[in-house]
Amino acid sequence: MTENGTPIDKDKGTWVTWRPEIKVLDCTVRDGGLVNDHAFDDALVRAVYDTCAAAGIDYMELGYKGSERIFARDEFGPWKFCREEDMRRAVGDSPADVKLSVMADAERTDYKTDILPFDDSVLDLIRVACYIHQIPLALDMVKDAHDKGYEVCLNLMAVSTVHENDLDDALAVIAQSEAETIYLVDSYGAFYSEEIHALCAKYLDACRSTGKQLGFHGHNNQQLGYANTIEAIVAGANRLDATIGGLGRGAGNCPIELLLAFLKNPRYRLRPVLQCLRDHILPLRKTMSWGYDLAYMITGQLNQHPRSAIQYYDDGDGDIVEFYDEMIEA
Amino acid sequence: MTENGTPIDKDKGTWVTWRPEIKVLDCTVRDGGLVNDHAFDDALVRAVYDTCAAAGIDYMELGYKGSERIFARDEFGPWKFCREEDMRRAVGDSPADVKLSVMADAERTDYKTDILPFDDSVLDLIRVACYIHQIPLALDMVKDAHDKGYEVCLNLMAVSTVHENDLDDALAVIAQSEAETIYLVDSYGAFYSEEIHALCAKYLDACRSTGKQLGFHGHNNQQLGYANTIEAIVAGANRLDATIGGLGRGAGNCPIELLLAFLKNPRYRLRPVLQCLRDHILPLRKTMSWGYDLAYMITGQLNQHPRSAIQYYDDGDGDIVEFYDEMIEA
Repeated sequence: MTENGTPIDKDKGTWVTWRPEIKVLDCTVRDGGLVNDHAFDDALVRAVYDTCAAAGIDYMELGYKGSERIFARDEFGPWKFCREEDMRRAVGDSPADVKLSVMADAERTDYKTDILPFDDSVLDLIRVACYIHQIPLALDMVKDAHDKGYEVCLNLMAVSTVHENDLDDALAVIAQSEAETIYLVDSYGAFYSEEIHALCAKYLDACRSTGKQLGFHGHNNQQLGYANTIEAIVAGANRLDATIGGLGRGAGNCPIELLLAFLKNPRYRLRPVLQCLRDHILPLRKTMSWGYDLAYMITGQLNQHPRSAIQYYDDGDGDIVEFYDEMIEA
Repeated sequence: MTENGTPIDKDKGTWVTWRPEIKVLDCTVRDGGLVNDHAFDDALVRAVYDTCAAAGIDYMELGYKGSERIFARDEFGPWKFCREEDMRRAVGDSPADVKLSVMADAERTDYKTDILPFDDSVLDLIRVACYIHQIPLALDMVKDAHDKGYEVCLNLMAVSTVHENDLDDALAVIAQSEAETIYLVDSYGAFYSEEIHALCAKYLDACRSTGKQLGFHGHNNQQLGYANTIEAIVAGANRLDATIGGLGRGAGNCPIELLLAFLKNPRYRLRPVLQCLRDHILPLRKTMSWGYDLAYMITGQLNQHPRSAIQYYDDGDGDIVEFYDEMIEA
């Protein structure tokens, strides 16, 4: 039983066991792309892909299927759009045992045209991301991707700001959708473990008997990205997002090098991830900034979007006490 | 109930409440002293003291009562020894509502002579620290400090490497001691939340009906220093160690700026801590290194003392993959 008295998956295992249902999705290039306008070069993308293959990571997410009507091609790198030719060029034709994924944002994806039929694409998984007011559109996107032959996830974002009865209504319709997986998403890095347990129980309860899996995507604003991922696992989540070195917008994500060691599935190997960190990810710190810092802590504690904290660090030379004072003003 | 089916303090509260029994101990100068051989200048010590007063932090730990027969005065700063005159000079005579503490290591403290009678000292709390084979000595140190008039804690270190039946034996005698508080200490940053819950339950069970409080001291090797402190709170711990900016040996400690926001006790104020970070702690990064990094992650995952990781970073220019290979060699 959890602290909240909700039942936990009987198969959750113990410290020395592992749960074969658990699959890990690397979103280094997708979430990290939010830091550099999706401008990673092919060598970096290929290095992450090869690392996923060597480390036994189940899925790799390449970026977004951004609409070229909304976003200018010359203002973003290729992983904002994930054109088929860009993906094929970067990952090559190697038959690596890593499924490929993109994220499709509600209202920002021309999904009917830009998501190709499954047989015409290197992609395996479409992850539809939406806010709660976009659920009807998201459900149409889920159906579209499912009908085209893909495995489909639905990521309901910013749920830490959603009222509970609205969430119940959303989960009721999501449960009827074609999505194989529903993600609990801590967009603002605001959740504590007891909330993770309560929400995982709610999501699982809504989807009971549908066969859907529960996923979790955390952020590290309060140094809880990895910790909350562990709590989601304990609470029954079997699909886990993480990134190499925690690379991701703002405070970043759950570091995959921490997660793989926790999971103990012999399929997963830490050493290739350390190699990738040494050779590819840590050198990015010369030109990209990410990870826990005080301004992200403050937006996380206040359950707010990290944009003001990102702006604070972009401006440079800020005064963290002044930032705090501004954030807590009414 | 926890995941382990153990009972939880009925008074643990909810997200919007706070538990008045909880007290926070700042060990910035003590644990941070392990990074710079306890050589903080008086201004830094005074700044932390004033911050604790302004932020409502209950205790501040100044350092160790190291034996001058064992440790040379000229090889360490004053906070290795915490002579009465040094403490009085640094904190002054201001009647701040912050209790003062030192740590007394078993076998490294001339406790009978160097710990003065309570009325002759600025100290309020003596924290006896020991490994499990030092329990008999530690119990004599606890009695000595108690008889001299102090509040006393017992910190049993490196418990992640202690066999469970030995721990049961230790807790049985500790329960009979004069210590008001027993600390669960995650010396190597190796514990996951389920272990925290199980061990807190074990400690509380051993001390039931003695009126002792349970404390928790974490380390951040796996980015779980703060998260495990939250879990210890949920499991009933009422005495919590933390440091400003997480300053501490190796991966550092639970950051007090995260903890205070979680606790929600109106006594605690975040703003003075942010001021201290800006003006005193973050500038230390020019000459001191601490905080989560990959080599500390590896020693934490392997449940080992961080000394090899500290050496790795002291040497500089290391190869993290080679470090990993060395660490997992038999």
